Amino acid sequence: MTILIINGPNLNLLGSREKTIYGAQCFEEYLEELKQIFPDFTLDYFQSNIEGEIINKIHECRLSHEGIVLNAAAYTHTSVAIRDAISAVDIPVIEVHISNVHKREPFRHVSLISVSCVGVIAGFGLDSYRLGIEALTKLNNSK
Amino acid sequence: MTILIINGPNLNLLGSREKTIYGAQCFEEYLEELKQIFPDFTLDYFQSNIEGEIINKIHECRLSHEGIVLNAAAYTHTSVAIRDAISAVDIPVIEVHISNVHKREPFRHVSLISVSCVGVIAGFGLDSYRLGIEALTKLNNSK
Amino acid sequence: MTILIINGPNLNLLGSREKTIYGAQCFEEYLEELKQIFPDFTLDYFQSNIEGEIINKIHECRLSHEGIVLNAAAYTHTSVAIRDAISAVDIPVIEVHISNVHKREPFRHVSLISVSCVGVIAGFGLDSYRLGIEALTKLNNSK
Amino acid sequence: MTILIINGPNLNLLGSREKTIYGAQCFEEYLEELKQIFPDFTLDYFQSNIEGEIINKIHECRLSHEGIVLNAAAYTHTSVAIRDAISAVDIPVIEVHISNVHKREPFRHVSLISVSCVGVIAGFGLDSYRLGIEALTKLNNSK
Amino acid sequence: MTILIINGPNLNLLGSREKTIYGAQCFEEYLEELKQIFPDFTLDYFQSNIEGEIINKIHECRLSHEGIVLNAAAYTHTSVAIRDAISAVDIPVIEVHISNVHKREPFRHVSLISVSCVGVIAGFGLDSYRLGIEALTKLNNSK
Amino acid sequence: MTILIINGPNLNLLGSREKTIYGAQCFEEYLEELKQIFPDFTLDYFQSNIEGEIINKIHECRLSHEGIVLNAAAYTHTSVAIRDAISAVDIPVIEVHISNVHKREPFRHVSLISVSCVGVIAGFGLDSYRLGIEALTKLNNSK
Amino acid sequence: MTILIINGPNLNLLGSREKTIYGAQCFEEYLEELKQIFPDFTLDYFQSNIEGEIINKIHECRLSHEGIVLNAAAYTHTSVAIRDAISAVDIPVIEVHISNVHKREPFRHVSLISVSCVGVIAGFGLDSYRLGIEALTKLNNSK
Amino acid sequence: MTILIINGPNLNLLGSREKTIYGAQCFEEYLEELKQIFPDFTLDYFQSNIEGEIINKIHECRLSHEGIVLNAAAYTHTSVAIRDAISAVDIPVIEVHISNVHKREPFRHVSLISVSCVGVIAGFGLDSYRLGIEALTKLNNSK
Amino acid sequence: MTILIINGPNLNLLGSREKTIYGAQCFEEYLEELKQIFPDFTLDYFQSNIEGEIINKIHECRLSHEGIVLNAAAYTHTSVAIRDAISAVDIPVIEVHISNVHKREPFRHVSLISVSCVGVIAGFGLDSYRLGIEALTKLNNSK
Amino acid sequence: MTILIINGPNLNLLGSREKTIYGAQCFEEYLEELKQIFPDFTLDYFQSNIEGEIINKIHECRLSHEGIVLNAAAYTHTSVAIRDAISAVDIPVIEVHISNVHKREPFRHVSLISVSCVGVIAGFGLDSYRLGIEALTKLNNSK
Amino acid sequence: MTILIINGPNLNLLGSREKTIYGAQCFEEYLEELKQIFPDFTLDYFQSNIEGEIINKIHECRLSHEGIVLNAAAYTHTSVAIRDAISAVDIPVIEVHISNVHKREPFRHVSLISVSCVGVIAGFGLDSYRLGIEALTKLNNSK
Amino acid sequence: MTILIINGPNLNLLGSREKTIYGAQCFEEYLEELKQIFPDFTLDYFQSNIEGEIINKIHECRLSHEGIVLNAAAYTHTSVAIRDAISAVDIPVIEVHISNVHKREPFRHVSLISVSCVGVIAGFGLDSYRLGIEALTKLNNSK
Repeated sequence: MTILIINGPNLNLLGSREKTIYGAQCFEEYLEELKQIFPDFTLDYFQSNIEGEIINKIHECRLSHEGIVLNAAAYTHTSVAIRDAISAVDIPVIEVHISNVHKREPFRHVSLISVSCVGVIAGFGLDSYRLGIEALTKLNNSK
Repeated sequence: MTILIINGPNLNLLGSREKTIYGAQCFEEYLEELKQIFPDFTLDYFQSNIEGEIINKIHECRLSHEGIVLNAAAYTHTSVAIRDAISAVDIPVIEVHISNVHKREPFRHVSLISVSCVGVIAGFGLDSYRLGIEALTKLNNSK
Repeated sequence: MTILIINGPNLNLLGSREKTIYGAQCFEEYLEELKQIFPDFTLDYFQSNIEGEIINKIHECRLSHEGIVLNAAAYTHTSVAIRDAISAVDIPVIEVHISNVHKREPFRHVSLISVSCVGVIAGFGLDSYRLGIEALTKLNNSK
Repeated sequence: MTILIINGPNLNLLGSREKTIYGAQCFEEYLEELKQIFPDFTLDYFQSNIEGEIINKIHECRLSHEGIVLNAAAYTHTSVAIRDAISAVDIPVIEVHISNVHKREPFRHVSLISVSCVGVIAGFGLDSYRLGIEALTKLNNSK
Repeated sequence: MTILIINGPNLNLLGSREKTIYGAQCFEEYLEELKQIFPDFTLDYFQSNIEGEIINKIHECRLSHEGIVLNAAAYTHTSVAIRDAISAVDIPVIEVHISNVHKREPFRHVSLISVSCVGVIAGFGLDSYRLGIEALTKLNNSK
Repeated sequence: MTILIINGPNLNLLGSREKTIYGAQCFEEYLEELKQIFPDFTLDYFQSNIEGEIINKIHECRLSHEGIVLNAAAYTHTSVAIRDAISAVDIPVIEVHISNVHKREPFRHVSLISVSCVGVIAGFGLDSYRLGIEALTKLNNSK
Repeated sequence: MTILIINGPNLNLLGSREKTIYGAQCFEEYLEELKQIFPDFTLDYFQSNIEGEIINKIHECRLSHEGIVLNAAAYTHTSVAIRDAISAVDIPVIEVHISNVHKREPFRHVSLISVSCVGVIAGFGLDSYRLGIEALTKLNNSK
Repeated sequence: MTILIINGPNLNLLGSREKTIYGAQCFEEYLEELKQIFPDFTLDYFQSNIEGEIINKIHECRLSHEGIVLNAAAYTHTSVAIRDAISAVDIPVIEVHISNVHKREPFRHVSLISVSCVGVIAGFGLDSYRLGIEALTKLNNSK
Repeated sequence: MTILIINGPNLNLLGSREKTIYGAQCFEEYLEELKQIFPDFTLDYFQSNIEGEIINKIHECRLSHEGIVLNAAAYTHTSVAIRDAISAVDIPVIEVHISNVHKREPFRHVSLISVSCVGVIAGFGLDSYRLGIEALTKLNNSK
Repeated sequence: MTILIINGPNLNLLGSREKTIYGAQCFEEYLEELKQIFPDFTLDYFQSNIEGEIINKIHECRLSHEGIVLNAAAYTHTSVAIRDAISAVDIPVIEVHISNVHKREPFRHVSLISVSCVGVIAGFGLDSYRLGIEALTKLNNSK
Repeated sequence: MTILIINGPNLNLLGSREKTIYGAQCFEEYLEELKQIFPDFTLDYFQSNIEGEIINKIHECRLSHEGIVLNAAAYTHTSVAIRDAISAVDIPVIEVHISNVHKREPFRHVSLISVSCVGVIAGFGLDSYRLGIEALTKLNNSK
Repeated sequence: MTILIINGPNLNLLGSREKTIYGAQCFEEYLEELKQIFPDFTLDYFQSNIEGEIINKIHECRLSHEGIVLNAAAYTHTSVAIRDAISAVDIPVIEVHISNVHKREPFRHVSLISVSCVGVIAGFGLDSYRLGIEALTKLNNSK
């Protein structure tokens, strides 16, 4: 199974920024762990701080990948365009968040993109990504 | 690891009710599948339509179990008392939902209990429960 | 035709409580009148102050009765769980209220359960129950 | 007993318009059925698309009729003037709706006129009118 | 000075309706008193329950009269069209109300038409009309 | 193609009222221009300040015309009844506005009738009507 | 008749401040005009920028005066304490405003004190005070 | 004087839960202190996590007790049914809270039951119960 | 123990104003009763209608008194400045109200100052002050 | 006349995405049709998923083009920056939408950019672009 | 240049109150520092806890000073009267805050007075005052 | 001290756009003036219309600069991602605006980024940037 993990704005700083919220590990390190957990999968990775580049990537991968694990970060709460991009592609998208967004500021409780995704996983630290891949696997099997 | 799965109101009808939303399998059947997936775990199950009985159960299991997977169903959106019960016990609680609540009526987008839980998993059908147990396992390991 | 009348919280006090709003007759007395008006019907009656017990009753009667006349009282305005219970059973449910809720406090103008019911009858004193049964009869005939 | 049935805007198209919502029978036909159900009553009928003409009619009939069954249709949600007209006459007015307005758009959940009426009956198709007359009869008897 | 007094919906019932709010005098009687108070003025009078007829009248009188005293009654709170009609004519319009609308239901605290009028006078019973004419006089003098 | 142009309240004053917003040309003059632009079409015209008369006209023309260009003016923002009338007829209705309503007061940004119309054209002065007819033509051709 | 005119904050600058809104005449000058218009009345005057001093004055004058004409200026929109002071005294209070507050910022459309006053007069420039006294006279006569 | 103290959901955990908010003493211990402070009173105690059982208890005690001190805990903010139960009994009910609810989450600032109670005491730790009994005593004396 | 009782705007009229809400006793009389109930305490009293003077007093007494019982009356709902003053001093402040504010207008349900006070006591008539002093005593003892 | 057509996010997928909403034709094909309809015009085309690139393009073309037809898609509802860009250039911008946004989710009813555009055309499928160019032509002629 | 610094309620306690928010220096000390930084300026200072006295001061200084640096503290969020006072004088007023109000409670994010001031400076501790004077200097130079 | 000035969308047009709001000087010219005012500082400059590029720049400069003066323009009101970027870097960020945003449209009164910045300076024209640098200097000195 080929899966694309997309990280949104500021997640390139993971491991160096606000460690009490996001943890101290950078994502590239964690990606290696993930690849070991899912040795039979192709796990690709993309990060951008630019909303439109994330949209471009979602468009592109609809032919090359079988599923997306998306942490849209701040764009979760403001981007109708990413929501529309997800609706426009046929592959399943899983929304993940590192922190439990319901414990943070009220504007982070609202997600504009959830309605276009298969489901949501939030609050388990980096483990949210593993659970997202787990969920995609199951979806794939039940087809 | 000993885990309690708690199902809230109307989930006793699972498999017979609104199948386009909740699927056609009853929970007891699915529970057997779960036990096979996690053979080393003790998985207990409790269902009630009465808000206060769910609170009682959460209180009780804080000594007997190491984690809760909770689908509070309709009480997710109305029960401050269950929220307070979760805050009052020390074991981790994972909030799960069968359907992607963000695709349903607006009042179902708001959860009163998420803030007291470790994290939230929603939209993967019955597989949300499996992912919930997966998440608990990881939390347990990282202690 | 077999019909179940369900009364929600505090309606056990009917006849002794806030008589200017609810009238001075207790419900058991009025039930006898109803049975005389509809001699060919089986009219059963259930009252509880516990939300979950009302849900249990709605579940049970889906096999034994052909319709429900429901005065959910205060739970009308707060119970998503009863709303879901009504949606989960196949028999028709008629929402009734003794008083015209629109003449009372603003929070009583909003009903969470109307959307799951066939229709609503409010403001005719105890006669609202008779009209509810009348409405069920007609629905039954037009099947 | 002399009763006036008033239908508001667009209800002249009943039977030809949006049949999935309002049914396929035109009101004049149904009126004949009603007269047969209540042979001892005088049932008069008035329809207008003009808000002010409905007000004029409510004023007029306060001397000639003993009750009004009013389906104000779209004016239910926008007319303070009809609300004031109902408050200004002494005869009882019953608010009826063909569809269960709570299953339609949110702005149709709010009625400006309910507070001036004796009670509300909604969701039973054309049978709502029969139930409205039933309700008036009872009120008349209990005087 | 030629002045038109316009009364909106239900004010034709003045003197017979809700006397605790509006008083017991009918408007025609009071109009005679007004004519005696202002013997040098031409006081014309128009009442309609139909929103559009009030608009027609406002259009017409812009050539024939020097000012309008308008009690739009319920249309005060719902009619953008009357507001636009007032803005479209050049003669001054004074908004008057018999009751102090701020002591009544909250939706009566909002006037859609005040912004198009010279000023507002509310709460002095029928005397509000006399004060409205007084205000017009002064405006006329200061030109 | 036979088309009816309907103008709502206060538009009879076009050319004489608030010229900075609506321009200095009266509609009858402009109608002649329109007829020259579309020589093969039958362009009928109706104006009323009375909400219910506009509804009556919409009902009538569903047999006689193939499309409506509607400027509901102030009723755009307050009339659920016109919205229902448009939904009740089968011919296409195009909503037009002379001014860009989004540059005016906030309550003019909300249209109750757009949802029942094919589309909306606003802000091009009287040219909005020509564009509305253009749009109808295309719809007709693509049938 | 003895009347107290109370002016609230910033009205001491009348005649020197924002002349397009409030006019160019200072209040003391205008007061002389008023005394000539009502030669048989005792017209006293009080101005303060301090909310509590206005309350003190309202308390004091309940024994010495028969009515108050109050322009509370900015405190109109923020002072529950002045509202309570008016409710606490038995003499009639007339709320007046120089400008038509409905043509200004939205927060000026809301008055906290209107509900405690007999009535409201707004928008007639300084003439609002004369109309306020006129209104008091009438109230006094009709006792 | 016979008084019933009712504690709502999760208060059975008092002394073991969230001690920074609720303190470290369990209620049964504190009850013994209270009995020593009021030796002449009969102080009964009831705790339940089930909303409807609290309603049942309120109904029952209207004959057996002279006053209720009620800490409805989470149900304070969600239960219209308890509010109605309090309104339905004739004995005085005092609402108490251990913590100052205004220092906690915004949804805890709103109480649905205050309007049915004699008064409210909040923020004094367990001493709130003693003050509640003091308040009942005074009410009893002043009868 | 030295305690200062502060009364806010209009409470100087206590005993003469709106007796159905506030009772018929003036505060000075009641103060004598309080002194007899607490013979070992120094009870000082301050009343002002001026918001800033209440702030001045709160500042002053932080050195001279051990606690404040504050009825801020109307300023409860509008004064951020008094809230800040309470936060700025170290001595405990108890918020009291004579009436149950939750039975009055909605804007009186919101207190801006509760969050700065130790706790709130409302609805017991003048006895609220006694309970406030009782609460202070206990706080003092438990230090 | 030289015109730039700008398409916002996801419109590069036109013809392959959600065909029930947007139709089955890709934009490049349609552009050829447009060029044939307006043979004397220069029609340039730009599409980007990146908000800031659209702003850059709007800036650039203010010297090279005489008008813009802009379908900002999802950015219509979230981009204050595009709104400001339109206000900053002197050439006319016409806002177009393929679908009738008023028939879609509520957040799509609000446009942040309308206020900066000459006018709005929505709901006519791809024909909205042709009407937009028609509107520009007329504006150009009437200069 | 002559400048008046005005401090609002509770700022007399600066240096002794909530030091984590406001710092530990009292304002008089800081004023001496300011005078040394701007040796060629006349810096006057006024502090009051009484809203109306601040208004009086603003009125007075319009003749004596060339600019005001105003920290209205709590009145920033509640005083329409100070806003009107600033609009009524011709000299420039700079709004300053010691803390970054956007990091505090939501009601402190709203300023009623900003709209009347030249500009706002917030969050720099006592240095906000120096920056306010800097800003006034520049304004003065560019006249 | 090395400082980066970042300008957001449309500010590249400064000097040519909406001159009544933003002034007639282009930013590059003004930058030269700034460099003369602060000869000992390194002042770098970056402008972009793309939200994500601004985020990239903020990330980059955390190693190379000691402070940021940020005018996020339209993104101030819509970008959670820039807010998060500011929180993620350790150097101080000062939010500046050329115009007093409180005098413009209501949506410009809300800043999503203020909470992450040290402080805010708005309304002083281009001088806001100088004041921002002044503020940074002081912060640097007091370290």
